[in-house]
Amino acid sequence: MSGVELEKSTTIDLRKKHIGPSCKIFFSHEPIKIVQAKGQYMYDENRQRYLDCINNVAHVGHCHPEVVNAGASQMALLNTNSRFLHDNIVLFAQKLQSTLPEKLSVCYFVNSGSEANDLALRMAWQYTGHKDVITLQNAYHGHVSSLIDISPYKFHQMSSYEMNPRVHVAPSPDVYRGKYRRDHPDPATAYADEVKDIIHKAEEKGGKIAAFIAESLQSCGGQVIPPWATSKKWHVRKAGGIFIADEVQVGFGRVGTHFWAFQLQGEDFVPDIVTMGKPIGNGHPLSCVVTTREVAEAFMSSGMEYFNTFGGNPVSCAIGLAVLEVIEKEDLQGNALRVGGYLCSLLEKHKEKHPLIGDIRGRGLFVGLELVRDKHKLTPATAEAQEVIYRLKEQHILLSADGPHRNVLKFKPPMCFTKEDVDLVVEKIDNILTEIEHTLGMTNKQNVDNEGGKRKASET
Amino acid sequence: MSGVELEKSTTIDLRKKHIGPSCKIFFSHEPIKIVQAKGQYMYDENRQRYLDCINNVAHVGHCHPEVVNAGASQMALLNTNSRFLHDNIVLFAQKLQSTLPEKLSVCYFVNSGSEANDLALRMAWQYTGHKDVITLQNAYHGHVSSLIDISPYKFHQMSSYEMNPRVHVAPSPDVYRGKYRRDHPDPATAYADEVKDIIHKAEEKGGKIAAFIAESLQSCGGQVIPPWATSKKWHVRKAGGIFIADEVQVGFGRVGTHFWAFQLQGEDFVPDIVTMGKPIGNGHPLSCVVTTREVAEAFMSSGMEYFNTFGGNPVSCAIGLAVLEVIEKEDLQGNALRVGGYLCSLLEKHKEKHPLIGDIRGRGLFVGLELVRDKHKLTPATAEAQEVIYRLKEQHILLSADGPHRNVLKFKPPMCFTKEDVDLVVEKIDNILTEIEHTLGMTNKQNVDNEGGKRKASET
Repeated sequence: MSGVELEKSTTIDLRKKHIGPSCKIFFSHEPIKIVQAKGQYMYDENRQRYLDCINNVAHVGHCHPEVVNAGASQMALLNTNSRFLHDNIVLFAQKLQSTLPEKLSVCYFVNSGSEANDLALRMAWQYTGHKDVITLQNAYHGHVSSLIDISPYKFHQMSSYEMNPRVHVAPSPDVYRGKYRRDHPDPATAYADEVKDIIHKAEEKGGKIAAFIAESLQSCGGQVIPPWATSKKWHVRKAGGIFIADEVQVGFGRVGTHFWAFQLQGEDFVPDIVTMGKPIGNGHPLSCVVTTREVAEAFMSSGMEYFNTFGGNPVSCAIGLAVLEVIEKEDLQGNALRVGGYLCSLLEKHKEKHPLIGDIRGRGLFVGLELVRDKHKLTPATAEAQEVIYRLKEQHILLSADGPHRNVLKFKPPMCFTKEDVDLVVEKIDNILTEIEHTLGMTNKQNVDNEGGKRKASET
Repeated sequence: MSGVELEKSTTIDLRKKHIGPSCKIFFSHEPIKIVQAKGQYMYDENRQRYLDCINNVAHVGHCHPEVVNAGASQMALLNTNSRFLHDNIVLFAQKLQSTLPEKLSVCYFVNSGSEANDLALRMAWQYTGHKDVITLQNAYHGHVSSLIDISPYKFHQMSSYEMNPRVHVAPSPDVYRGKYRRDHPDPATAYADEVKDIIHKAEEKGGKIAAFIAESLQSCGGQVIPPWATSKKWHVRKAGGIFIADEVQVGFGRVGTHFWAFQLQGEDFVPDIVTMGKPIGNGHPLSCVVTTREVAEAFMSSGMEYFNTFGGNPVSCAIGLAVLEVIEKEDLQGNALRVGGYLCSLLEKHKEKHPLIGDIRGRGLFVGLELVRDKHKLTPATAEAQEVIYRLKEQHILLSADGPHRNVLKFKPPMCFTKEDVDLVVEKIDNILTEIEHTLGMTNKQNVDNEGGKRKASET
């Protein structure tokens, strides 16, 4: 490294020249150059501070010194593959296991959520001998080809896409905008019955269910908090399939009340496979698949070795272990519960005042604020959501919008986020919404359904 | 980290309990616990030193201080995703590009060779609109499901495997044991013609070729040095497909004469996509796909964003950049040429003496020593190769055996390997071969074809 910082325009030019054009940047017309970060703050090339409400990967806070030290010392000592015995991999596996139901005891360390979900599918296919997979509408499970197939969030972006006939899409269990809503007498069972129907239809065509895969809470799908129905797993199991809980976005204490989001479904609910990613290494490329002894033995019985060159190396495992220790020591799960609860309650206070606020939903520091142009028709306020994001950025707050209509403001900050941070961001959002509503002539009694803001949905 | 080392037996027990049984360990009956490494040496829990002839990932030497410092300082400063502008990603891309033909100018940073090869396939499918892929016999391209399909090295391990009808396997261009050998008048054209035939057969069945993928030199396939025939690319191009050069094992100066192994085919030979992995981050989870502007634009035209959470983060890129700088500064490519050449010449000197030595082949520090029980029948000396590996290990030298018969001793050491290291390992191999041949009653005039050594092929 030269140590010399490039002019921002040079960075942009080199990026255009040498980085794949499919790799999008935040705020593409006025991108931010970030050179440093600490806790819940990021700093640009002018040392201007941004409050970070979006980087769920920097789980215990950007550049946490204990995580950095763990990684740096291990890098200086040894970094090699898992074909040699090493303490870090087994200690990390043991500590991860202690956060999970006892049955989930066997770990496979990999380098990304995508590698984890692909491996989970391979296990499901091998264990069941079946091929069909049920996924949720708006789901995102990763970028490798097998996962594009089960990620409607991705394949719907493609101009031409042939759906894999072995993949079946169940409705997103969104009780605000989905097929069964809060006014339904039993949306949980209704969504579970949809899965049952899909299984029947697949079987009628000769399909056999290998797995049902779902994020424990849908993130890209719009920060969806589903109604819990363990009968879903029961239907899948009855069809000979297994249940894969994707905790890549929502695990590691983010939901506040539990360490894993699938635990929101009750103590008795144990998935067959849990996949982990993003926060597990606080930014270091690290992920994990945890499963039962039963599934692991069946996977081995194929006769094929599983070797992952970088997976489970001593540096990755030292970092993963340090992240778990920091979550515990700093009670970040407790902080997520307290600060996330405070965020939701503060947003709720503003809800009545703002015609644009359709729904507020969250668990811990996983919160969605859905903007609508009409509280009855639920017309997505997509452009307005983009306007909020851009105006917040101008005020040095980083937030993003997602969901199928890109109208859900997504809060998933580093877990050291504070109540003061909440006060700041909610105050800014309150002001921006007031201004937008004023410009659009919206009052709380009357939403408008017009073209609204100016920016395109594809921006962030 | 507690800082306390576990008893080796405890590490083994915890590994059995918590790590997937498909994740194999070297020397499974007497595994080694490695706690430290430096340069071309690894150290076990008793601080016993091992000479490392196998870890091609620790490319510039284990724990190289400049690489460690680059990673550690960047970890303390910033580690975030590539949706923010950052200098490291563009500087790394620019420096990588400077090692490649000008046309190969667009980079996609990912976390593993598997992610890289899967992305290369996605690009080929999108660019060509075709689906069929030609791969080589004994090829290994990665562990995600799309790559198992194109990796006969892996899928042949499975007790039951249904071959993907879109995948076509061409003969391995092995001039020692393959379909066309050194005694063939033109093995290069003969192997290229096999590819041409495969294309015709695929097209007759309605298939359309998206890509031909091959390691520039086959590694797991048995350290194969192919005869060069650029007409292979021509046949593939004529069928509308593109050429993917997998440099995951053999890139970054290892072959000595060139920085990339595909360059051995001549200055004019430019693949459409090059995938990189293992050595690129000296152990850090990092990989890259480099392609032409033409392929990159076509990939973007699908409408689908490519986002990889950890790919191209500032830490990974700082490390990648440092690795390139060290290769240059320490002239490791030159060292590979000199030391690798010395290794081959020294092995050649012993060839006549040893009935077990069938073939010696290599480029730079990528060398294979193929053991046979019969120099005419080429009966693979699989058990003997295992015996050599185990005895070397007892003498604190780490070597491995690979290839379809697991009878090829593979040299792929860190690139700081010295002539003294070569002297040591060749002397030991010479002694061990002499002992084994003596035990088996082999003389150079007469190979024996019996059960030989005692250890199983599946060990390493």
